[in-house]
Amino acid sequence: MSKTLRIIPLGGVGEIGKNMTAVEYADGTPSGSAIVVIDAGMMFPEAHMLGVDLVIPDITYLLENRDKVLGIVITHGHEDHIGALPYILPRLNVPLYATRLTAGLVQVKLKLNRVRDATIHIIQERDTFQLGPFTVETFHVSHSIPDGVGIALTTPLGTIVHSGDFKFDPNPVDGEMTDFAKLAELGARGVLALLSDSTNADSPGHTPSEQVIADTFARVFALAAGRIIIATFASNISRIQQAIDAAARFERKVCVIGRSMQDNVKMAVELGYLQADPQRVVRADELSDYASSEIVILCTGGQGEPTSALTKMANREHKQVTLRTGDTVILSASAIPGNEEMINKTLNNLFREGAVVYYDRFLDVHVSGHASQEEEKWMINLVRPRYFVPIHGEYRHLVIHGRLAESLGYRRENIFIVENGDVIEFDEQARARVLREDVSAADVLVDGIGIGDIGSVVLRDRHQLAQDGFFIAMLGINLRTGEIVFGPEIETRGFVYTPEAESIIEGAKQVIRDAAASSAHDTGLSTTLKQVLGEYLYKTTRRRPMVIPVVTEL
Amino acid sequence: MSKTLRIIPLGGVGEIGKNMTAVEYADGTPSGSAIVVIDAGMMFPEAHMLGVDLVIPDITYLLENRDKVLGIVITHGHEDHIGALPYILPRLNVPLYATRLTAGLVQVKLKLNRVRDATIHIIQERDTFQLGPFTVETFHVSHSIPDGVGIALTTPLGTIVHSGDFKFDPNPVDGEMTDFAKLAELGARGVLALLSDSTNADSPGHTPSEQVIADTFARVFALAAGRIIIATFASNISRIQQAIDAAARFERKVCVIGRSMQDNVKMAVELGYLQADPQRVVRADELSDYASSEIVILCTGGQGEPTSALTKMANREHKQVTLRTGDTVILSASAIPGNEEMINKTLNNLFREGAVVYYDRFLDVHVSGHASQEEEKWMINLVRPRYFVPIHGEYRHLVIHGRLAESLGYRRENIFIVENGDVIEFDEQARARVLREDVSAADVLVDGIGIGDIGSVVLRDRHQLAQDGFFIAMLGINLRTGEIVFGPEIETRGFVYTPEAESIIEGAKQVIRDAAASSAHDTGLSTTLKQVLGEYLYKTTRRRPMVIPVVTEL
Repeated sequence: MSKTLRIIPLGGVGEIGKNMTAVEYADGTPSGSAIVVIDAGMMFPEAHMLGVDLVIPDITYLLENRDKVLGIVITHGHEDHIGALPYILPRLNVPLYATRLTAGLVQVKLKLNRVRDATIHIIQERDTFQLGPFTVETFHVSHSIPDGVGIALTTPLGTIVHSGDFKFDPNPVDGEMTDFAKLAELGARGVLALLSDSTNADSPGHTPSEQVIADTFARVFALAAGRIIIATFASNISRIQQAIDAAARFERKVCVIGRSMQDNVKMAVELGYLQADPQRVVRADELSDYASSEIVILCTGGQGEPTSALTKMANREHKQVTLRTGDTVILSASAIPGNEEMINKTLNNLFREGAVVYYDRFLDVHVSGHASQEEEKWMINLVRPRYFVPIHGEYRHLVIHGRLAESLGYRRENIFIVENGDVIEFDEQARARVLREDVSAADVLVDGIGIGDIGSVVLRDRHQLAQDGFFIAMLGINLRTGEIVFGPEIETRGFVYTPEAESIIEGAKQVIRDAAASSAHDTGLSTTLKQVLGEYLYKTTRRRPMVIPVVTEL
Repeated sequence: MSKTLRIIPLGGVGEIGKNMTAVEYADGTPSGSAIVVIDAGMMFPEAHMLGVDLVIPDITYLLENRDKVLGIVITHGHEDHIGALPYILPRLNVPLYATRLTAGLVQVKLKLNRVRDATIHIIQERDTFQLGPFTVETFHVSHSIPDGVGIALTTPLGTIVHSGDFKFDPNPVDGEMTDFAKLAELGARGVLALLSDSTNADSPGHTPSEQVIADTFARVFALAAGRIIIATFASNISRIQQAIDAAARFERKVCVIGRSMQDNVKMAVELGYLQADPQRVVRADELSDYASSEIVILCTGGQGEPTSALTKMANREHKQVTLRTGDTVILSASAIPGNEEMINKTLNNLFREGAVVYYDRFLDVHVSGHASQEEEKWMINLVRPRYFVPIHGEYRHLVIHGRLAESLGYRRENIFIVENGDVIEFDEQARARVLREDVSAADVLVDGIGIGDIGSVVLRDRHQLAQDGFFIAMLGINLRTGEIVFGPEIETRGFVYTPEAESIIEGAKQVIRDAAASSAHDTGLSTTLKQVLGEYLYKTTRRRPMVIPVVTEL
């Protein structure tokens, strides 16, 4: 057997979220195969995934090759890169490799989910270490969180570069630019394949610097008379830093509300990733000691999430903060697709409470952490890979990113638009081929404590129940005489408002009695009932509840 | 009794959609009251309105005052202004007043919904007519559909101006600018209250001219080698005109796909609102007679609606049009909040089919039909009303629109931010007061043939069913001995995938048997079962299905 190198996207292509990529090197001997995994993210459920809490990648392939998996290297501490760890680590107990802040965020997350015994190796932003046959090199990338890295994996068959989530911010909040030098060095050395972040592939030009937010905050702070409330992601350390800096400049105290943001802030301060004068930070129970004009509140809720602090404030349900006229609220976020309605609801409620609200329709309250088209071109032209693989994006982003590479002179056959579970395989002559759907890579749905037990059948049922509810008809039949012993009894929910729908229920009972009279001895009574009831209910209401007949023979 | 004039928003304030405003004049005598209604729109259901087809205004007040309602004046032919008519007219059979194109669109809609016997009076864009005590004057407003009007209602207590949906397009597609002269004339005459469109109140500056689209189409047409497919709303006559014009310029044939758009185009051509050379228009079955480079297809689907032509094409489900590499698709729309996920899905599928797709992230494929802030200020300053009432907007839009009026010098007490069902009442001294929630104005949900029979109970049940499904436990008990005669039988859907959850089902049966053994003679067995089963299932799965015990006593 000859040597092969394989790139296996297990999540994050054809979707925004649950990023996970496996890279496998086989040296040609039966036992000589090794896998390094990059990231283990979660994704918010799509609208059709009713009742699902979150979605994680399918690790079947990794479990099947458990002894080959050398570890998971994490690029940065956002949910779509670390959020699956609490669900995956108990089953795939392998060491993690992460920079300090990322490791801190992982530890906060694992602790919250009561996952113990994880082994985390701290790595530097510019580091080189060996994992079996892989020489792993990391390089800093600027993003909306500090301490993010891209990764280069060098094997005897060549080097694979994974961009992580990046932008080329000319003036990052933490002062650390994306590591041009290392990217250029890798490019000069020769790169087999580049996997690059496609999130903003449909945005022309350059993404503005995160520092734009400093100007926005300064403008808003200068105008605000009362309290200032800023909502953003709990993990957006850079944004939190900017809010703290603005508070310092305008001599306000900062209060962090909500468990997840408090945990992250505490950890980031301890590790030195957040600079905050302890004198400036106050607890929620100390807020009443200060005038409104002296207060900045930091909290979650930028997506209008129902359980977030901001949404609770907007709904008058927050225990510690009651909004009042004169409060200023900055929604320092942009909508993740699917969240617009929740965000709008929160915005409207904030206005109802009399707050002055700033959001992205008319102010630069948010800047993306991802590269736009011109930056994506830089990445490609610095690394100059032989093959280009757009990752981290919906299908359209991948295609557009691929077209950008074409515009730089890449030939279409050297660009791979792949889906989760496809395998890109390189041989010793650096030839590449794609094995479509070679590896299991389904959406694994997490619902309650169930991981992966919700499939298409359950979702289809939930969908029908959500649309028109159910209609259950129960009936006891004397097996010998065919007479009805009890029932028909009806249980229906989500179909009609029963107190006002008595005639429909009575009509249905008659339909059942008629069917029973003509076919009681027929073993197919259930089937008949399902059909005639469905027809009757549709005719009467133009709705299609889930009809379930239960015939008990006594 | 003294004379009063009342403005009663029945829909369209605190929401985008289902616009309907009643204006009532009472002359002080017991019988001397008259109502004119402006618009009767529908709204798409919000995310929490599971299974609901559409939402219409509550007309309880109009039905209670049936004999006073003189008619419904329609401002223009969009769904959010006419969509409720098929549901309302059969119950509130009053005459309609509409311009020619608007009347045409209403007729198409009523015919589609099999509503007959509607009386529609055709009015002109600049018209004056009498409805009881109301002198009704109309004035043209430019919008994304031709033949739109605003309305002035003059009574002995003053004039109320309703802006309709408007923008101040400097170069409208139909050549008809918003009627500055009439607005100025009304302002000079004196206006008691202005009700003005707030849809874009959070957009600074001016809305671009609809003609911007002509440039976009020209750029895309110049580059396109294959077929061009343009998706927009079926009622967006101006956009359709621009597509036809671009087709003419680039010598392509135009094919309109889909019933609703075909009906509208046919009607608009007949009435002279669409200019299309009959030679240019081809049927779907003639498409194969032409080269790809000679074809433009117009269809619906700009919102990714599942039943639209474009979505079907993207899913390879359209009977007449199969997408192919080289096709160009223009999504000439911007997302209505809540539709983003559907749109993204359609976009991704279009890319998967190899199409070149243009959408709003990187090209001006859509222009709003609504005024931005500077235009909204023009409207206020032209009409110079004594009182200002922002309408057509979510709560935040109304508040921001109100603040714009404040910035023009209006005092806060002369600006009314109201919600559906509030009543603004003016007396003979032109004093105003707001009676909060004075009139019934709930969301009326249409589901199947049911209008208004779906309420909070049904929606709550649907929500619970959508989240975790149901779990029904059936049990026959011997009334005398307390023994179990049949069962426990379990029916569950949407909760767990039953073939893999046998142990949960068996565990539940044991819980039921234990409960029955200890409390069979207890009349509260059902209550007990509901509780212990709910606890057992939550403990086992961390899910909360709807638990329904059915105990039959035999």
